Amino acid sequence: MKLSDVGERTLVELARKICKRGARVRVGVGDDAAVLDLDNRKCAVLTTDMLVASKHFPPGTSPEQMGRKAVVVNLSDLAAMGAEPLGLVFSVGLPRSLKVKFVERLVRGMNAAALEHGTYVVGGDLDESEEIVISGTAFGVARRRELLTRSGARVGDLIAVTGRLGAAAAGLKLMLKRLPVKSYRALVRAQLEPRARVREGRALARSGFVTSAIDVTDGLAANLWQLAKESKVKIVMDRDSVPEHPLVRKFAVEHGFNVDNLVLLGGEDFELLFTVRPRGWEKVRLTLKRMGTTATTIGCVARGKGVFIRAKGKTRALPDRGYEHFR
Amino acid sequence: MKLSDVGERTLVELARKICKRGARVRVGVGDDAAVLDLDNRKCAVLTTDMLVASKHFPPGTSPEQMGRKAVVVNLSDLAAMGAEPLGLVFSVGLPRSLKVKFVERLVRGMNAAALEHGTYVVGGDLDESEEIVISGTAFGVARRRELLTRSGARVGDLIAVTGRLGAAAAGLKLMLKRLPVKSYRALVRAQLEPRARVREGRALARSGFVTSAIDVTDGLAANLWQLAKESKVKIVMDRDSVPEHPLVRKFAVEHGFNVDNLVLLGGEDFELLFTVRPRGWEKVRLTLKRMGTTATTIGCVARGKGVFIRAKGKTRALPDRGYEHFR
Repeated sequence: MKLSDVGERTLVELARKICKRGARVRVGVGDDAAVLDLDNRKCAVLTTDMLVASKHFPPGTSPEQMGRKAVVVNLSDLAAMGAEPLGLVFSVGLPRSLKVKFVERLVRGMNAAALEHGTYVVGGDLDESEEIVISGTAFGVARRRELLTRSGARVGDLIAVTGRLGAAAAGLKLMLKRLPVKSYRALVRAQLEPRARVREGRALARSGFVTSAIDVTDGLAANLWQLAKESKVKIVMDRDSVPEHPLVRKFAVEHGFNVDNLVLLGGEDFELLFTVRPRGWEKVRLTLKRMGTTATTIGCVARGKGVFIRAKGKTRALPDRGYEHFR
Repeated sequence: MKLSDVGERTLVELARKICKRGARVRVGVGDDAAVLDLDNRKCAVLTTDMLVASKHFPPGTSPEQMGRKAVVVNLSDLAAMGAEPLGLVFSVGLPRSLKVKFVERLVRGMNAAALEHGTYVVGGDLDESEEIVISGTAFGVARRRELLTRSGARVGDLIAVTGRLGAAAAGLKLMLKRLPVKSYRALVRAQLEPRARVREGRALARSGFVTSAIDVTDGLAANLWQLAKESKVKIVMDRDSVPEHPLVRKFAVEHGFNVDNLVLLGGEDFELLFTVRPRGWEKVRLTLKRMGTTATTIGCVARGKGVFIRAKGKTRALPDRGYEHFR
């Protein structure tokens, strides 16, 4: 059986079964980030993500943008755990025919993105490879009792999301189909120069009202399913409440794309999707607002299982679809 | 200018200049491992290494052996810092045409090697890529005052090395030239299934007598040069004292290889090369011996710069040669 027959999730499940866990391993293989106990109060949080040029970077991505994205995908995972990033290391595989200037611009992009998120690139490894491969690891710390995971959602919680969705997916369509950029520059930028919600993640962790979190990377639907499964709850989402990036609907109508595909299934928004106790919602919303970040409730957590979407007066099951490697 | 014109070291120097360091970054880009302050006493140690199948694995390497090596190269860097490993994460890029069994065997190799060294595989990321690329990050902790670096060697120190050298390089020759394995199975095993000196590194760090350390990955000569440069000292090595793997000389004579090339320039021994105060040497040697590990003094640290080799009554400069990517 080949990798393309089973897909990434099956392979991760296989790895999860094989890898033994020590006493200090709080969260192991299978989650976005690993958590290791440092002492009675503090944990180390580690996450790794590999970007392969031909798969992850649309044509036209600059070296600086590759470096930035490699930083952001990793910091976003720490943000979803509510951790404070302390540093990033990168292993980079490059063809020997590349220009030295490429490496300089790549590292400048990494350094700039790290500083913007309050952290640093602290080490790395350079290797020869056929294609450009950038593998990053972000390291952070968190108080154990503040740690956010995917498994803490409770019946009665509200579901909320930061920012607005769909822009990165629309930007990707724009680039891949070589459509005219014109007034859609913000969509391209959302795809090429995303930001991770690091400060927001820490604020959610400290609030005491947030019960679970995940970053929107595979698409809202897929990430809601992950929350529902890991927390063993049912999620009911209201379609009209989902905050859309203001340009996405206009773009979809103009170029004949399905808005739902971009907003509900498109990934790489790097927003935080989280569940919160209702009595704490207003406080959490205001805390984020003071940081200049909007947050919107999009549904609630109920007893049962599965993810459902309410739209035009009807409630139907939301398919568990989103981006998956090897498929 | 292309990467192949300048080589890996120039690129690392470039990255070192670009990347800003925060107050908690004790050791940043350019060293084998990064060190971040956790509190007044403890540091986090992070290291990353990428293995690209076509460059790092000789034909005939099994998936288990690939997984093992990916663990060992990273743990060896932690060992050289005297850190205690807490966990490893891996980003793995694989062609979609690979068999699922390959992934299973790869992860089994990783898990087994991690357990043998007293640590765990705690997370990862799977991606599609043209060729097999395995990028690992090892995370560990160390007491700040015990941390071993490349820059602490002092005039008057002895230079010592664990184990015996040259077997991995000889094993690589054997495999690449497809020579008959016969009585040389131990050499092939040294190449394909190396061990990292994790326990030994921690013992050296705790001893209080060891002033600097590095793992022998690029070759003894290149690693001695790194110690000399970073510590701003001169090193004089005695050729006859260098411990050779018992089969290496026999193999070299039989197949017409230069013994010095294998023992002094061949890499991937993953032994620890360290400097030690003379009054502590015997205690350190006995501590390692109780672990079943030999250690041998091979020279001493003097005022000045450069690395010199004493052989057959003459002292000459040792060339700064060893493995370097992109060259």
